[in-house]
Amino acid sequence: MSPFAKRKSASVAACGESALLEKIRRWLGPVSPPPPAGMGDDCALLPPSRKNLLITTDPVIYGRHFDDTVPPAAVGAKLLKRNLSDLAAMGARPTSAVLALTLDPRVSVHWMEQFYRGLAAAARRWRVRIVGGDLSQAENFIGAYLTLLGEPAGRRAVTRAGARSGDSIFVTGELGGSRLGHHWDFLPRLAEGAWLARRPVVRAMMDVSDGLAKDLFALAPAGTLPALDPAAVPVSAAARRLAAHTVQSPLQHALGDGEDYELVFALAAGTDEGAFTRAWDRAFPRTRLTRIGRFIPQKNFPPGALRLDRFHGYEHLQG
Amino acid sequence: MSPFAKRKSASVAACGESALLEKIRRWLGPVSPPPPAGMGDDCALLPPSRKNLLITTDPVIYGRHFDDTVPPAAVGAKLLKRNLSDLAAMGARPTSAVLALTLDPRVSVHWMEQFYRGLAAAARRWRVRIVGGDLSQAENFIGAYLTLLGEPAGRRAVTRAGARSGDSIFVTGELGGSRLGHHWDFLPRLAEGAWLARRPVVRAMMDVSDGLAKDLFALAPAGTLPALDPAAVPVSAAARRLAAHTVQSPLQHALGDGEDYELVFALAAGTDEGAFTRAWDRAFPRTRLTRIGRFIPQKNFPPGALRLDRFHGYEHLQG
Repeated sequence: MSPFAKRKSASVAACGESALLEKIRRWLGPVSPPPPAGMGDDCALLPPSRKNLLITTDPVIYGRHFDDTVPPAAVGAKLLKRNLSDLAAMGARPTSAVLALTLDPRVSVHWMEQFYRGLAAAARRWRVRIVGGDLSQAENFIGAYLTLLGEPAGRRAVTRAGARSGDSIFVTGELGGSRLGHHWDFLPRLAEGAWLARRPVVRAMMDVSDGLAKDLFALAPAGTLPALDPAAVPVSAAARRLAAHTVQSPLQHALGDGEDYELVFALAAGTDEGAFTRAWDRAFPRTRLTRIGRFIPQKNFPPGALRLDRFHGYEHLQG
Repeated sequence: MSPFAKRKSASVAACGESALLEKIRRWLGPVSPPPPAGMGDDCALLPPSRKNLLITTDPVIYGRHFDDTVPPAAVGAKLLKRNLSDLAAMGARPTSAVLALTLDPRVSVHWMEQFYRGLAAAARRWRVRIVGGDLSQAENFIGAYLTLLGEPAGRRAVTRAGARSGDSIFVTGELGGSRLGHHWDFLPRLAEGAWLARRPVVRAMMDVSDGLAKDLFALAPAGTLPALDPAAVPVSAAARRLAAHTVQSPLQHALGDGEDYELVFALAAGTDEGAFTRAWDRAFPRTRLTRIGRFIPQKNFPPGALRLDRFHGYEHLQG
């Protein structure tokens, strides 16, 4: 659906700020608590917590992260889910979020309603309260900027640091071809991330957002490279479908497309990987878990292994 | 300074994402802690706190909150200061912030450097750590979205709710004409907000960002109206200068311009206002504190008093 109103009378500018704010509160419903714990004061005032606090921020922008083909409810859900994926990557669960929205004055109130209802449904599903926001205007631009707070689901948060040379590399789900639909219909791996964080043999973890080829270097211990078995990389059906129409191979799509929102992690060398994957299969029988390689000292890099530095992930700034 | 590079080679797009992220870390310096407490992981991981958590979000957008006349260092500082003003309004102090930045590819690296150095200087001054961020691209748009965390400076946070009929209305500083410079060279009233929050007779407080005429209704107890003495409103010199070139009076500018970033609060009826203002003058000898009126039951509204509902504040959505 196009975000722009056909008639000016159906636009957010015609609706006006205070009427729109009232509608937003109604669309969000119980997801939006009353002030001071929610919108309506200078800040939201949240209770103290004994746990560590996690914070992440990601936007969705018209023309970059969504277009007219994505239903507005899915845009609202995607905004929350891409931030939830960052919490999942550390084994955390969400608590609260604030949303700053910048709108072209011609955006339709109907599009906004669907956007907020999609956001509210996702917030209910993953128990997130939307506690604050800001509304601003710009020409020819629509952007929604969410900042999400969370806390470790268990005793610890898993960071990107901690992998050691020789550790195995595992990835959840399948990779590539996200633009065919997965980029907005994915489910953030919150339960999976929490499960993995409870296991000390999971030494480091992150989510795959810019493409495995770009992201995986952030997990590699100093002096090592990720050595992947090309045949092991779980290539999605979408990556294969896409490759039929592009110059790239399915594997290139799997490694470079980005927006997979899967988890990639380092499993301590010496772990009983058979027992580990059997436990995973019992917990998540419908989600594939694949060992795709391991971190190897740069100087011992095996000639047959996949060199990820020859692939390219998503670049956020393009000339 | 124009944010756009004259030559393509001086643009952020030519610089590239990873080089730019490295520069950003350097420009921020010690304000940007290493991960996991800072940028570089999926989320920033912050220590637990025994205090309440406050959260607020506000952007600065090219063409709305700044233009080519504002030095980029002042844009970076303004981004932090407008969020700090929201903390000040509740008697809180800042802790951490995350920043999502959306850039036109033609933005110059030089402009970015000045922007970040201005942000970093303000962050050092008010002891804020920049712990996370996101970088994205859009055509013909520059927007910086900051989410700021804080905690009560003392025992309590002051909300907008709590004023009672008969309470006096006080405002700090002077109002109006902000666009002549105050909108970026102001100092957020953090010390003043903390001082006021320590006094239980301060029943409700907020900052003046959209103009007193619009904002003050948020403090008014149900069934009351703010009755102002027009002669008491502290009109700034800038409001007078501006009025010489507009159709509006200095008072109209003082009540409607917005971006004052002053504090307005309700003082409990029956308070010794002389002693209160003398204590203020000792604490803040260079900052004016003015009693501008009080909250009066709607049905008893005095005919001579200023009706704020006849003025207009800043509208965030305009047709």
